[in-house]
Amino acid sequence: MTFKYENVFLSNVSTIVGPLESKGPLSRYYDMHYDNLYCGMNTWEQAECRMLIDSVNMVLYKANKLRNEINLHISGDLLNQIVSTNYASASLGIPLIGIYSACSTSVLGMIIGSNMLDKNQISNCLVSTSSHNNGAEKQFRQPVEYGGPKKKTSTFTTTGAASLLLTNKKDKVRIESATIGNVVDLGIRDSQNMGAAMAPSAASTIFKHLKETKREINYYDLILTGDLGIYGKKILKEYMKLEYNIELNNYDDTACMIYDLDKQAVNAGGSGPSCLPLVFNSYIYPKMLNKEIKRVLLVATGALLSSTMVNQKLTIPSISHAISLEVTDDIF
Amino acid sequence: MTFKYENVFLSNVSTIVGPLESKGPLSRYYDMHYDNLYCGMNTWEQAECRMLIDSVNMVLYKANKLRNEINLHISGDLLNQIVSTNYASASLGIPLIGIYSACSTSVLGMIIGSNMLDKNQISNCLVSTSSHNNGAEKQFRQPVEYGGPKKKTSTFTTTGAASLLLTNKKDKVRIESATIGNVVDLGIRDSQNMGAAMAPSAASTIFKHLKETKREINYYDLILTGDLGIYGKKILKEYMKLEYNIELNNYDDTACMIYDLDKQAVNAGGSGPSCLPLVFNSYIYPKMLNKEIKRVLLVATGALLSSTMVNQKLTIPSISHAISLEVTDDIF
Repeated sequence: MTFKYENVFLSNVSTIVGPLESKGPLSRYYDMHYDNLYCGMNTWEQAECRMLIDSVNMVLYKANKLRNEINLHISGDLLNQIVSTNYASASLGIPLIGIYSACSTSVLGMIIGSNMLDKNQISNCLVSTSSHNNGAEKQFRQPVEYGGPKKKTSTFTTTGAASLLLTNKKDKVRIESATIGNVVDLGIRDSQNMGAAMAPSAASTIFKHLKETKREINYYDLILTGDLGIYGKKILKEYMKLEYNIELNNYDDTACMIYDLDKQAVNAGGSGPSCLPLVFNSYIYPKMLNKEIKRVLLVATGALLSSTMVNQKLTIPSISHAISLEVTDDIF
Repeated sequence: MTFKYENVFLSNVSTIVGPLESKGPLSRYYDMHYDNLYCGMNTWEQAECRMLIDSVNMVLYKANKLRNEINLHISGDLLNQIVSTNYASASLGIPLIGIYSACSTSVLGMIIGSNMLDKNQISNCLVSTSSHNNGAEKQFRQPVEYGGPKKKTSTFTTTGAASLLLTNKKDKVRIESATIGNVVDLGIRDSQNMGAAMAPSAASTIFKHLKETKREINYYDLILTGDLGIYGKKILKEYMKLEYNIELNNYDDTACMIYDLDKQAVNAGGSGPSCLPLVFNSYIYPKMLNKEIKRVLLVATGALLSSTMVNQKLTIPSISHAISLEVTDDIF
């Protein structure tokens, strides 16, 4: 399902990260970081909640808006019952749409908001996501303190939160179109190789987006997937070539950008719903404002497993959602 | 945030229930039931997934539609990472928006779909929810086999799945308006008294809906909350009177309708995201088709806790979303 928009603009962004991310290659681009994984709270879950609230406050501050001027908050995270979102929302007091689409949550949120904005059903909305490495490890795998070994195909859940403000008031970057993905399951069972599980869903959504917008792949200056990691990225490129005869050239994966894969012990790269928006908001969006990059397709990729289903030896379904952003050079 | 719609219609509904529900007072109104909680599958989670798929197939069959004629599926459930939805979607193959709003999921899904339909961004969508008593007990409390005693204020997660088809093609019942709720947290910590946690959020959303539509409470023939249960229902009536001076008369709660509270051992009533849509789809919607009831406000109530947050002794935030349906007697 592909939507075209005329009337949706990206007005402001924010990024809050944890200690490891703040030492990564994008260090200087983040708005704020915590030196401690607890972020001044008592538990990992409450720390994630803290960062999510920070990211909302930060984007509101930058946009010079009060909470009661915001029509809607669309948010999601990885924790069971998306509690970071729900507990943050109790103190934010903005009408909430809670969504779950694993690591593709950020783009799904942008799509739901863009559809409402394009037809003036709302005049602005916040879209947020968060994740916390230790919270995710404890929930999906083993507490970090157990020191369990990891496969080199595993990814490292990013600690951070990112928010962005969408409006129907003209601005320098606009949301141009978007494609909602289908769930794809090609039979991968290894939860330490989620890049392999997600790559076919990314391919399916990119292909669908190009087909439904009648575009060639080189229409975009940059195609950015979420968290395939180094192995998943390679699979996606090969799969696109073999399955659809499409060469992915102007392409990168935010899992491979957020950490220094040679020096930081993250195996195949970053992951988590905050990975893509942290890289986009901090590093790519400013390049769009400077007109270094004019057309970007964000393809957020989500592995829809739970530890319950992994324990039942089921395969891992995945979904990817895509959104196209472009510089509105005609008006500035 | 309240939306008004001109162009959104309820075209078809389906209901699938488990053994206990099929012996309840609405027995004769459901489309299908399973006599066994496994529904022919190996686990509770897979059983829930099975019912969700059944409910989609049933509504498509009634509507004489193929899956590839459906633009969008909006769905959510209670399980961690909404796996019933995500695993069902892998076999359904319809573009998916996954949402989480606990037991208020059904109405949130209807709102997201209605916003897109009203402006012809899509021409139809399916909205589904599911829940499974044993799956929910295992995840949120203790496996049923442990036989732990329950407080009389506790509710019983309904086993079932419900789907409905929304379109922008004129039909006998239309979606007239909707209100997205805020998260409310008045400090309840007892996860066996979710009615008390959710009642203030239901009150807040009903009040906001009436204010933003400039309506009196008696505009509606029936106001139906989701799963407050007998104690939460009483709290809501008292709270509405005390806080807003509003008398809730034409009012009921689906938690109190889905089971025989005198004969079935469910304590304060039903709950779960499927509770409200099972009652509405099977019992209230036919009354609207017969014009026995013309204007209904559905107020789905969700307790946004997780067992992790309950173990951390945190309070229980809640959210309620409201949607107004009315008989379109001018055209039939």
